Amino acid sequence: MTRVAILGATGYTALELIKLLLRHPEAEITTLTSRQEGNPHVATVHPSLVGRLDLRLEDLAGPAVAARADCVFSCLPHGASATVVPSLLAAGVRVIDFSADYRLDTAASYADWYGQKHPDPDRVGSVVYGLPELFREQIINAQLVANPGCYPTSAILPLVPLLKAGLIEPRDIILDSKSGVSGAGRTPKLTTHFPECNESISAYNVGRHRHTPEIEQIVRRGSGREVSVIFTPHLVPMDRGILTTAYSRPVGEVTEELLFKTLREFYAGKPFVRVVDHLPGTKDSAGTNFCDITARLIKGRVLTISCLDNLVKGAAGAAVQNFNLMYGYPETTGLL
Amino acid sequence: MTRVAILGATGYTALELIKLLLRHPEAEITTLTSRQEGNPHVATVHPSLVGRLDLRLEDLAGPAVAARADCVFSCLPHGASATVVPSLLAAGVRVIDFSADYRLDTAASYADWYGQKHPDPDRVGSVVYGLPELFREQIINAQLVANPGCYPTSAILPLVPLLKAGLIEPRDIILDSKSGVSGAGRTPKLTTHFPECNESISAYNVGRHRHTPEIEQIVRRGSGREVSVIFTPHLVPMDRGILTTAYSRPVGEVTEELLFKTLREFYAGKPFVRVVDHLPGTKDSAGTNFCDITARLIKGRVLTISCLDNLVKGAAGAAVQNFNLMYGYPETTGLL
Amino acid sequence: MTRVAILGATGYTALELIKLLLRHPEAEITTLTSRQEGNPHVATVHPSLVGRLDLRLEDLAGPAVAARADCVFSCLPHGASATVVPSLLAAGVRVIDFSADYRLDTAASYADWYGQKHPDPDRVGSVVYGLPELFREQIINAQLVANPGCYPTSAILPLVPLLKAGLIEPRDIILDSKSGVSGAGRTPKLTTHFPECNESISAYNVGRHRHTPEIEQIVRRGSGREVSVIFTPHLVPMDRGILTTAYSRPVGEVTEELLFKTLREFYAGKPFVRVVDHLPGTKDSAGTNFCDITARLIKGRVLTISCLDNLVKGAAGAAVQNFNLMYGYPETTGLL
Amino acid sequence: MTRVAILGATGYTALELIKLLLRHPEAEITTLTSRQEGNPHVATVHPSLVGRLDLRLEDLAGPAVAARADCVFSCLPHGASATVVPSLLAAGVRVIDFSADYRLDTAASYADWYGQKHPDPDRVGSVVYGLPELFREQIINAQLVANPGCYPTSAILPLVPLLKAGLIEPRDIILDSKSGVSGAGRTPKLTTHFPECNESISAYNVGRHRHTPEIEQIVRRGSGREVSVIFTPHLVPMDRGILTTAYSRPVGEVTEELLFKTLREFYAGKPFVRVVDHLPGTKDSAGTNFCDITARLIKGRVLTISCLDNLVKGAAGAAVQNFNLMYGYPETTGLL
Repeated sequence: MTRVAILGATGYTALELIKLLLRHPEAEITTLTSRQEGNPHVATVHPSLVGRLDLRLEDLAGPAVAARADCVFSCLPHGASATVVPSLLAAGVRVIDFSADYRLDTAASYADWYGQKHPDPDRVGSVVYGLPELFREQIINAQLVANPGCYPTSAILPLVPLLKAGLIEPRDIILDSKSGVSGAGRTPKLTTHFPECNESISAYNVGRHRHTPEIEQIVRRGSGREVSVIFTPHLVPMDRGILTTAYSRPVGEVTEELLFKTLREFYAGKPFVRVVDHLPGTKDSAGTNFCDITARLIKGRVLTISCLDNLVKGAAGAAVQNFNLMYGYPETTGLL
Repeated sequence: MTRVAILGATGYTALELIKLLLRHPEAEITTLTSRQEGNPHVATVHPSLVGRLDLRLEDLAGPAVAARADCVFSCLPHGASATVVPSLLAAGVRVIDFSADYRLDTAASYADWYGQKHPDPDRVGSVVYGLPELFREQIINAQLVANPGCYPTSAILPLVPLLKAGLIEPRDIILDSKSGVSGAGRTPKLTTHFPECNESISAYNVGRHRHTPEIEQIVRRGSGREVSVIFTPHLVPMDRGILTTAYSRPVGEVTEELLFKTLREFYAGKPFVRVVDHLPGTKDSAGTNFCDITARLIKGRVLTISCLDNLVKGAAGAAVQNFNLMYGYPETTGLL
Repeated sequence: MTRVAILGATGYTALELIKLLLRHPEAEITTLTSRQEGNPHVATVHPSLVGRLDLRLEDLAGPAVAARADCVFSCLPHGASATVVPSLLAAGVRVIDFSADYRLDTAASYADWYGQKHPDPDRVGSVVYGLPELFREQIINAQLVANPGCYPTSAILPLVPLLKAGLIEPRDIILDSKSGVSGAGRTPKLTTHFPECNESISAYNVGRHRHTPEIEQIVRRGSGREVSVIFTPHLVPMDRGILTTAYSRPVGEVTEELLFKTLREFYAGKPFVRVVDHLPGTKDSAGTNFCDITARLIKGRVLTISCLDNLVKGAAGAAVQNFNLMYGYPETTGLL
Repeated sequence: MTRVAILGATGYTALELIKLLLRHPEAEITTLTSRQEGNPHVATVHPSLVGRLDLRLEDLAGPAVAARADCVFSCLPHGASATVVPSLLAAGVRVIDFSADYRLDTAASYADWYGQKHPDPDRVGSVVYGLPELFREQIINAQLVANPGCYPTSAILPLVPLLKAGLIEPRDIILDSKSGVSGAGRTPKLTTHFPECNESISAYNVGRHRHTPEIEQIVRRGSGREVSVIFTPHLVPMDRGILTTAYSRPVGEVTEELLFKTLREFYAGKPFVRVVDHLPGTKDSAGTNFCDITARLIKGRVLTISCLDNLVKGAAGAAVQNFNLMYGYPETTGLL
């Protein structure tokens, strides 16, 4: 049994994580934090948890959290997370960080894309990226894991095997992504106000979404190839789910058969990637930790389509998968 | 041609009104107001209006508005509206007020339900309620019209004919209403944040919704009967539409045939109420100024089901209907 | 470990059941049946099951199924279920029947409401109704359990404690229910075609829905009171969830406090009913086996609002709960 | 006043057309056809039309229709339309055909993509494509107009101006399109069954959607360039709206400023194309005949994003626009 704490427990990824951990036989949630006044009961903030978890949200500093937990999941926003993580690590606990703070290669890249100086720059670039399908061995022994972004997971998983096998060009990759609204977080905004985004689809942050460098840098780490992507996210009127349609250029004689063979061999034995023949919908993996991937060869272009649940495989499920690896539990514990 | 101004033009009812008036051959929108800084172009606030209306939102006082318009539609919130309306009336313009400020019988009732002193108490109780199906003659000559609330319209229209005909008891009426989310306005809140209210239905303001006294008082004005209703609003994951299921008790020998006959005779010649045999869905009247009503007799109870579009017949469409009556245009102008 | 079979495995309740049983440590799914040609793989019919269950759908008769399973869940439609159940019982297996075939008191009532002669009339009326909150002891020892309907569960759970305590009148109860679309099953029809039912709410089967006698008969079994209800179902544009707003008449001096006390005492120790102070939304219990109930006293009327997931507590979850009781597993196994 | 008939009046495009024509001051709907038995009233099939149009659906042959109408809108499915159109033309009426039958260049291409021999092959290739922004002059004098497909309109409008100006390469264009469900028609199918497609996005017909040759052939007609596109349609859980994200390769030194200038000059004076700076959502043009277009230059790639309502600008609205041109009414009549 491992004692866990969750920092920033008011949002959607934290809620999803709580639900997964309640079902996990080896995790005991001891601590939830938030800056909300009055230490509200978690079920006041998340009514779906009535009767399921009897904890209050507390406003605690790193050392106080470290005293109560072996593993800390930080669901704090970027910037805030890297401010508290060093104290947790110093206190000897292991940390899985949902924020973007430790995902990029350099503090300079972070400053460029996140518009602020990194609070803990020395650590940046040496933290393992928590995608078990690529970095399993490093995750097992890590004290700090940078949990992947939701869009990046949907982009990295189909691209890396094809790049490693030399089947597609690393340049000129187009990633047309479509996401449900929970990916935008729980803070009410006009763009996610129901009557604005319901019954509508729109692109946003075209050419400047912060997941762009994350995708490029991690694909490079995973494949050894310098890649350049155009990433276009779209907001879809549904709660959860990401579908990424990736368009890339084949190298030499590539067949659909070869694409599938490469993907299937790469993901053999990896329980949460399903290479499927049919065209998957996001509903097939909703509420699960699966990522469904298919491929097509159309007019001399390679298409991959990947689907996952942004709150599970794109966030909380990946975190539990990392947790399982870090603590020696079977990788699928609590996730099937 | 009548020059019109719209106060508080940033919300959904104002947007709907603008779209209806753009199609109205006898209305010219000259002025839009809002307290937004910088006098933004209306298409900045409402992108659907690009190329359709070339006006800026201005922060204007009553007299300045009155100088530019013959008729003013106030889409200001309650409290704010009754602060500016007196100056408009004094300047001689006619006003159609979307707020609740002039709908109730007494300033005391207003204070009870809206939690504030009425800014213009002397006028309260003598203002015509803008439901043309009931108060057509008074509307024609009114200088000020209190445009009805969306729920009340869906409740009043089925109840009044049956009460006037003595077919149902005025006490113990249950109104179970279901509304789309646009009825909650355009200000982002957690309850109307997409991932919160999508894929969910819930009741709200049970026993204390402010439309309760409006329904009771106007049904009394329309039917001459003192009524008491239990009104339970529910939030439905859709943009627009209200369906009200009303349960009342028949008086004496009532048949379904008699219910339909009574409703059909009452609404004969009234172009926007459709008494239908089938069970209507809100989609049938979405985007229109129609209210669809049907009735059933089930186990000794009278059921009526009424559907309308909360932004049209429940707000902007009713306002245009009132405008037509006030200015002598055919009642359906711009509304079919 | 208990071997289980699922009859009629192509629909939504069967899919939900499969997912729950895959997570259940003591159940082994050995057999899935359907009349689909060619024995398709279950993942062909339900793409969300790729990699999760390696079974084909077979067209098997009762005895063949009985040879492979200890417990059979029948997700066959009404009429079809009671045709195969006798052979299963004769073969000694235990059966949990999702259809309406064994829920009513008499074969005559069944014929009235389902428009056909009952295929197994002698058993009707003596089969336990699988609502563990009311009939736990009989379920434990039953060979055949009639799994409850989704609407009835949402109606019975709030009503029975208040009726048993004598707090509400058994006559003149109004049940205004709202359901997601999955309750209508998986066969495409115009009424559940996306562009028809999306962005719309409508009532259907008013006064003649087949769950009406089930509600009345089971509430009587549970409370000992003859009840009469008006039941009005509405279709809501969401996948899953039922909210039932029940209006009843208090007997004598009833307070809100007393309503809550009565509900809380009745459901103390019953893990899947949550009596909550706030107004629940269906999302709070979506994907779970919980039923959330609250109560209000409004103008001399008792209101209860109950929410559940029609596919879980309203179908597959209740079935697993019954399965747990029947086989001596802890009641919550696989359900939290 | 022009007398019009609508063939195949039971579907969504026909319903949208009826609503537009009811608002059109110069069109009189005299005839609706369908093969439905019993000549049902149109309001039985389309409840939203109760009280708005008093016609029955009749099963009529071409000559009978021609006797009652000056202009016939055919909403028949492909194959069926080209069977009746010749008799209408022979009778001297003018025809606007919603089907794909007369859109392609050759009967051979039609046979390839639609899997059947063309019923009226001699006319194929000489029929004007009803996109007024490109083919206005031919439309004015046409007896037969092939009304555009919904996806093609969203693809052709942004591409043609940029291709004509030589700003983008005609090869290797990627069209990633997202459509609401009404585009799939009114016949219930599993893929458009609410619980299947709600809360999900998926790609379909990848590499083999029938709008692919239509896009390529019409872009060539409009721009004079041979183009090749990869077209990937996706189904989005909303009623209406198409968003097409197009990725193309710039020729030489292209700036965003030049892209906008080119688009704005091309569409100057064309009332239904709005070139906008912001990223449009489909809701901005929902229910209207507008197509919103924007452009971006991202990492050496030209992106255009175009939005329209598939039932209006993508079908019925375009048809009315063509009707206006053919009969000499102002182009926007009935459409603003």
